[in-house]
Amino acid sequence: MTSVLSDSPFVRACRGQDVPHTPVWFMRQAGRSLPEYRKIRAGIGMLESCRRPDLVTEITLQPVRRHQVDAAILFSDIVVPIAAAGVDLDIVAGTGPVVAEPIRTEKDLDRLRPITADDVAFVAESVRLLTGELGRTPLIGFAGAPFTLASYLIEGGPSRTYTKTKAMMYGEPGLWHALLTRLSGITLAFLRTQIDAGVSAVQLFDSWAGALSEADYREYVLPHSREVLAGLADTDVPRIHFGVGTAVLLQAMGEAGADVVGVDWRTPLDRATEQLGARHAVQGNLDPAVLFASWEVVEREARRVLEQGRAAPGHIFNLGHGVLPETDPTVLTRLVELIHDISAR
Amino acid sequence: MTSVLSDSPFVRACRGQDVPHTPVWFMRQAGRSLPEYRKIRAGIGMLESCRRPDLVTEITLQPVRRHQVDAAILFSDIVVPIAAAGVDLDIVAGTGPVVAEPIRTEKDLDRLRPITADDVAFVAESVRLLTGELGRTPLIGFAGAPFTLASYLIEGGPSRTYTKTKAMMYGEPGLWHALLTRLSGITLAFLRTQIDAGVSAVQLFDSWAGALSEADYREYVLPHSREVLAGLADTDVPRIHFGVGTAVLLQAMGEAGADVVGVDWRTPLDRATEQLGARHAVQGNLDPAVLFASWEVVEREARRVLEQGRAAPGHIFNLGHGVLPETDPTVLTRLVELIHDISAR
Repeated sequence: MTSVLSDSPFVRACRGQDVPHTPVWFMRQAGRSLPEYRKIRAGIGMLESCRRPDLVTEITLQPVRRHQVDAAILFSDIVVPIAAAGVDLDIVAGTGPVVAEPIRTEKDLDRLRPITADDVAFVAESVRLLTGELGRTPLIGFAGAPFTLASYLIEGGPSRTYTKTKAMMYGEPGLWHALLTRLSGITLAFLRTQIDAGVSAVQLFDSWAGALSEADYREYVLPHSREVLAGLADTDVPRIHFGVGTAVLLQAMGEAGADVVGVDWRTPLDRATEQLGARHAVQGNLDPAVLFASWEVVEREARRVLEQGRAAPGHIFNLGHGVLPETDPTVLTRLVELIHDISAR
Repeated sequence: MTSVLSDSPFVRACRGQDVPHTPVWFMRQAGRSLPEYRKIRAGIGMLESCRRPDLVTEITLQPVRRHQVDAAILFSDIVVPIAAAGVDLDIVAGTGPVVAEPIRTEKDLDRLRPITADDVAFVAESVRLLTGELGRTPLIGFAGAPFTLASYLIEGGPSRTYTKTKAMMYGEPGLWHALLTRLSGITLAFLRTQIDAGVSAVQLFDSWAGALSEADYREYVLPHSREVLAGLADTDVPRIHFGVGTAVLLQAMGEAGADVVGVDWRTPLDRATEQLGARHAVQGNLDPAVLFASWEVVEREARRVLEQGRAAPGHIFNLGHGVLPETDPTVLTRLVELIHDISAR
């Protein structure tokens, strides 16, 4: 915990402190759009690459070198800890996580055992290598939140409707809460491992929580996400909480124990701040698809996000979701420069 | 237009008038979950079945007979008018609409010609057959809204991220508006044909508009949806406007010229009414996945929706999105009974 870079613009913004410029990073900055990433990954499966500290280190560093972002994010995948917990799964290119035998009964829960630091030693090793290389640039650790992990485990892969997930949630609430309790334990252990190894912040991705109403989120999800986020309150590591399509959930997601609430492109940051009662720093909002427009449009939208971000106690510039694979990386580099320039105080 | 059943509970609720009971219908009630539907469709492609008035009539009537709903909805698909406009497409079971050659350039627009009533004569014929059979039960006509249609045409099929759609929207606004102008013309002609043939209401589905922020919706979509909805203001047919994930768009969708705003499961109807300034009737909100829970949960949720619907000038009970294919149809029947019972005045 001595490694939290408390005077970095990124960590200061998470804490709502003054910054020399608005810090910038991009969800999915590591991987996807970078040719140097595609080169290093050639012939190596996604899960394997997440488990090799040499690859994780190189891939995590690539966007930092290229774009001069204010934070690195550990190259990994949200299913890494559940694979470590014993679930047979793969990450299929073009599809996403595919779970060999979905979890749908009480008995299936046995296939999801608690994890220890030893089960994810490769992650701790990657973090140690990275903090050595990164110097004054903070490293963000991350994990998937219990709801989003549950959705993959129950559906067996990505979904548009979350039918089976919700069927269990509404139809078998006892089983649902037992599953999410296991997942919050695994997630907490996974994040603790990263914090112990030296990350400066963590982001809990509840990417698909936006599939729920606020009432359902509060009943079926919030207690488990709080278990994770509040479970890290004894550390001095800022906690970012993010999901997509969360216009009606922002307040509840803040209450889960986040220092920073990540916002997708649908809710402007000033409105998000209003909903959050100005008690949290905010991050996000630029639609990743805007990066396909002319530079004029990119700049106009980036200035809007910066302007609306001023309403919050702290603002970290980011996209409203991950970098899309087809994105031109030179646009990302130029965007970092722009934000640094116009936000310099 | 003489056929608008102005004294039916459904049409009265659309207009915010007193009703003897809260009217109920379900999006996707025709098709999907019904065994009699699967039987009649066996071996017949989706597009073909939408073009055969005998099949359309039977499939549209099936849920009315079975569930005693307060309105029928024409069995069709949102891509029917764009197929009639000359676009080579198919509806692939398990996938959705697949467009042979996506529309991505100025030149591609030529493949999308205006339609006349003759191009969709089978729809007018179906409506005439149906109004004869339905008697005092109103028939709802429908069409896909320009944005949602554009998303299929540009992506070439269903999408999770709408990357290509937004890339055109942000990157080539001239082309975007030209495409949506064509689509609003086609949509308007398609709805006019249905109204002239005798439907009692229409629903404009902008299913995927929730992919946008309010600012983008207002700039890139609203003018075109208004073209359609306001273009029907000279008729006395109520207009319903619906989309999924529209928590931040409801006000704007009401402004597009809707009498009734459809709401997904994320925004409770009382909050929707607040956003709409109580100027519109509301419809929707029950999560389709709730129907997989115990009857106790279904009843609790249905009562909540009814209660929250009272805030609006008019309330039509419906799900927050279409009936899911795995739904037990007997639950739908029981739900209609429940709503009729507890809302009887």
